Amino acid sequence: MTRRPGDGPRPSADGGSLRGASFHEMWRDLAAIGRHPATGGYRRFAWTAADAECRAWFAEQARARGLVYEVDRNGNQWAWLGDPARGNAVVTGSHLDSVPDGGAFDGPLGVVSAFAALDELRGRNARFTRPLAVVNFGDEEGARFGLACVGSRLTAGRLTVEQAHRLTDGEGITLPRAMEAAGYDPDAIGPDPERLARIGAFVELHIEQGRALDLTGDAVGVASAIWPHGRWRFDFRGEANHAGTTRTSDRRDPMLPYAETVLAARREAERTGAVATFGKIAVEPNGVNAIPSLVRGWLDSRAADQQTLDTVVGGIEKAARASAAAHGVDVDLVRESFTPVIEFDHALRDELARILGKDTGLTVPVLDTGAGHDAGILSGSIPTAMLFVRNPTGVSHAPAESAAEDDCVAGVRALADVLEGLACA
Amino acid sequence: MTRRPGDGPRPSADGGSLRGASFHEMWRDLAAIGRHPATGGYRRFAWTAADAECRAWFAEQARARGLVYEVDRNGNQWAWLGDPARGNAVVTGSHLDSVPDGGAFDGPLGVVSAFAALDELRGRNARFTRPLAVVNFGDEEGARFGLACVGSRLTAGRLTVEQAHRLTDGEGITLPRAMEAAGYDPDAIGPDPERLARIGAFVELHIEQGRALDLTGDAVGVASAIWPHGRWRFDFRGEANHAGTTRTSDRRDPMLPYAETVLAARREAERTGAVATFGKIAVEPNGVNAIPSLVRGWLDSRAADQQTLDTVVGGIEKAARASAAAHGVDVDLVRESFTPVIEFDHALRDELARILGKDTGLTVPVLDTGAGHDAGILSGSIPTAMLFVRNPTGVSHAPAESAAEDDCVAGVRALADVLEGLACA
Repeated sequence: MTRRPGDGPRPSADGGSLRGASFHEMWRDLAAIGRHPATGGYRRFAWTAADAECRAWFAEQARARGLVYEVDRNGNQWAWLGDPARGNAVVTGSHLDSVPDGGAFDGPLGVVSAFAALDELRGRNARFTRPLAVVNFGDEEGARFGLACVGSRLTAGRLTVEQAHRLTDGEGITLPRAMEAAGYDPDAIGPDPERLARIGAFVELHIEQGRALDLTGDAVGVASAIWPHGRWRFDFRGEANHAGTTRTSDRRDPMLPYAETVLAARREAERTGAVATFGKIAVEPNGVNAIPSLVRGWLDSRAADQQTLDTVVGGIEKAARASAAAHGVDVDLVRESFTPVIEFDHALRDELARILGKDTGLTVPVLDTGAGHDAGILSGSIPTAMLFVRNPTGVSHAPAESAAEDDCVAGVRALADVLEGLACA
Repeated sequence: MTRRPGDGPRPSADGGSLRGASFHEMWRDLAAIGRHPATGGYRRFAWTAADAECRAWFAEQARARGLVYEVDRNGNQWAWLGDPARGNAVVTGSHLDSVPDGGAFDGPLGVVSAFAALDELRGRNARFTRPLAVVNFGDEEGARFGLACVGSRLTAGRLTVEQAHRLTDGEGITLPRAMEAAGYDPDAIGPDPERLARIGAFVELHIEQGRALDLTGDAVGVASAIWPHGRWRFDFRGEANHAGTTRTSDRRDPMLPYAETVLAARREAERTGAVATFGKIAVEPNGVNAIPSLVRGWLDSRAADQQTLDTVVGGIEKAARASAAAHGVDVDLVRESFTPVIEFDHALRDELARILGKDTGLTVPVLDTGAGHDAGILSGSIPTAMLFVRNPTGVSHAPAESAAEDDCVAGVRALADVLEGLACA
């Protein structure tokens, strides 16, 4: 079989060293779901057919392991070992949906590793002292409705039912209609504090989305914090006109301040060590021979701390306003979303580091990240922690995203160690 | 009745001074066809329902005047006064289709004025010595299939049947299928030299698309030349990656060289007096939190002469390549279309100037333009000339395009004078 970018970890002779034979089978079963033949990337958007296939796979994994399967009011999937009503549960998992043409690992690595870690613990004959669950949070990437982590946000009460009901995809389909079409009840959605109250710790394993572990030479690390991050929409409004006949001096061309703002964003990022990206644009009328009336650009910016982020976005806004004024263009700035810095639970993080260093005596690297996660959303409600698995290229949200077989196995073992340390006698 | 941008010329008490009462009626009948209620602009794209309504209107105008109506093999509409077989015909007209959200005048002003000028000449009891026709060329704007002047290009043999059959709209519908759906025979299309051989002169009246006449204070002018112009597609290919986690130094972000190229285009235009516009863009994957893998930008550039245009485009290409290299991005440049400078027939132009200055002794302004026209396409086959009517704002290809009632009437009179001078005893 020819391997392509986007494939899961390469099977290796060493794979058998994981107790439980299902690790490669799980990757094999997931490999074809929602994969675009031309790009090799995944298109597993919330409440689509590809999403339904992923969810059926999850239910089957729960069934095959004799776990108690349930779907919560917000469509998140749970597979329980032990009675959740006992409380103080340890939960692990991630998500199965993807960005457009995403890689194989972002999300699925955390779910596959969760099931594989459970298999590993059973192979070790571990005695569980706390209820344990594997979870698949719905619509983490927000690829379809524009808002990330909808499943965990709803559960944590970080998104109101009214806001969720207004979410609409690019084809005008609302979230309620999409859930309904997928066989779920949109009237049931809402906060789920009782469920969260039963969870003592949530640990999410995820492929690293940068190259920090590659640079330190470690297979696995522990998360310290998620950078504060937000999305800002810049609407540059000028005057539509004929591109062939309108003199330069008569133009109010919004593409020009847009271009200067893109370059200002890169300058501010370089100056401060933050990131600032214009990756999405919408132009009206978007004709080759028409000066645009509207150029709408979206800024994604993140920084290690709030003050730096404020400085970066303030600098970009200032540049946008100055350039717009110089070109006779109006500019409106809307902050579409914002998440403050998230510090993961220090006690849980230290406990993970202790467990992972127990046998080796080595210090596990602790790193922060610019990416949002369900673990970040839940950290306001329950103790959460994250494990990262090395990504040698640092490529993320693209088919070339990759992780070595050995590192994935190391991730499963680390997660198994953590679950054993937290939930077993 | 409330008047809005995009409406035709305002009826005035003086309107009656045009012989023939149908001038305002023609505008009134056209006003509602293909108009978008939200923008107030026109969306009359080739072979759509709105186009069919415009074409039905044209056929009715021919019928009401007792003209011989015919559709040629390429779907262009003709209304004949006198037998075309006599040859040396004088033809006037323009087009009825529009750009997306175009104004009321670009195209229709030339067709309405043609019928109104014929009414005026009949009112003057003119004796016609040559056959006369009003024409509506199909798909002048190229809004649907991306290529302008398809009707006149096919007729003049400037577009092969094979090329035309490959034209495809944004929804994947080919030109042949679109023509068929509209009731036309796509197998009939092709060059029409016999038809062109019978035409001695083509005069197209058009709203000016810049402000030259406004600056000189003239209602009507005569065209000298169409600037050489072309469209170039710049494909900037970088590496898709996560906007939150990819360090600035690890990025290959194609949006950055795109932005620098947009600004280089403006600099080159200002330096040389040409125009250079990036009005259309396509980004992949176009996600807020994704560094793009591809930014595709289209350059429209035009200049008074070929050497200047070469300098401008060469300068922009150089800037694009330098910036792409600095950002680790690949760039490909494709010239998608190109039209060399078009000098309208000097003898016909001088004849028009003589006719128009005959009574007043004034010199009619002669101006060049950056916009393409069917008259430009036909100028390679037959003597052609153009009249421009003042556009006080210079706005074109947008709902705010406008012309004063008096100037429209002056345009009809000028066209009537020209037709009388060329085709009457």
